[in-house]
Amino acid sequence: MGLFSKPIKTLDDLFVHTLQDIYYAENQIAKNLPTMVEKASNPALKSAFQQHLTETQNQVKRLEQVFQMHGQSVKAVTCAAMDGILSEAKEIIGDCDDPQVRDAAMISAAQAVEHYEITRYGSLIAYARELGRNDCAGVLQQTLEEEKATDKKLTTIAESRVNHQAA
Amino acid sequence: MGLFSKPIKTLDDLFVHTLQDIYYAENQIAKNLPTMVEKASNPALKSAFQQHLTETQNQVKRLEQVFQMHGQSVKAVTCAAMDGILSEAKEIIGDCDDPQVRDAAMISAAQAVEHYEITRYGSLIAYARELGRNDCAGVLQQTLEEEKATDKKLTTIAESRVNHQAA
Repeated sequence: MGLFSKPIKTLDDLFVHTLQDIYYAENQIAKNLPTMVEKASNPALKSAFQQHLTETQNQVKRLEQVFQMHGQSVKAVTCAAMDGILSEAKEIIGDCDDPQVRDAAMISAAQAVEHYEITRYGSLIAYARELGRNDCAGVLQQTLEEEKATDKKLTTIAESRVNHQAA
Repeated sequence: MGLFSKPIKTLDDLFVHTLQDIYYAENQIAKNLPTMVEKASNPALKSAFQQHLTETQNQVKRLEQVFQMHGQSVKAVTCAAMDGILSEAKEIIGDCDDPQVRDAAMISAAQAVEHYEITRYGSLIAYARELGRNDCAGVLQQTLEEEKATDKKLTTIAESRVNHQAA
């Protein structure tokens, strides 16, 4: 939580703070995915990143809906974790000259992003249920399922072609 | 990858780089877990963090074993992702005054750590198999199973008591 943020006194505060954190993260992901689409060499990987960009834009809208449902204004707080994950991703992708090795590194980087989102949405859904906001939990669950599906798809692409070609 | 690191030209380079990345991450986690043990209020959570500290120390040794098996010297490269995850964890834990809310935040922070490890060990195992290093994959698989078990245990603690008390 940055300076001037509201202190976290209750589970409701923690829920709202985590919403703001993942809202920042999703927006950063949406900004970075076009580069992933561009740099992917494997057609299935390129297409998976393209599809996930569309999903991510929709997930941003879902978060805005949850803010509204919970009577909160839409706000982002800097997410040092996502900044770190994306900074590491850019660095390693930039360090790979070989397209097949870069694809393998990109899959791993994207899966780190997905797993961060999976854990944050998992927490948000648990908090929402505890706070009696099953309506918010239901909206967030849709995104969680998409993130899990993306992670599985990336594993399938890695195992079927990319790692094999890179070796 | 930082300055003066070896460029990543092959899947073997990517495997070694990822080993160095997670070696840094595991060491940072081992440094930070004693604070988590100290700050946890719920006894089951305190005990889970304590057990995971012992596991993490063992996981560091396993990584050293894999470096050796693969004919590499033990080396760490700064992992911006883990630095970001831990920095965010410290900040949010410091912002929570209420012990129950802090426990909920600590579980979420620890699960972000676990998920990062799960994704990195998943990639490492896939690379090792592709490189014909099933021996390394087997050692890394033991750690992956421990990380997954820790993540599940944290979910159980959150759902059974911590979130409910924090609400």
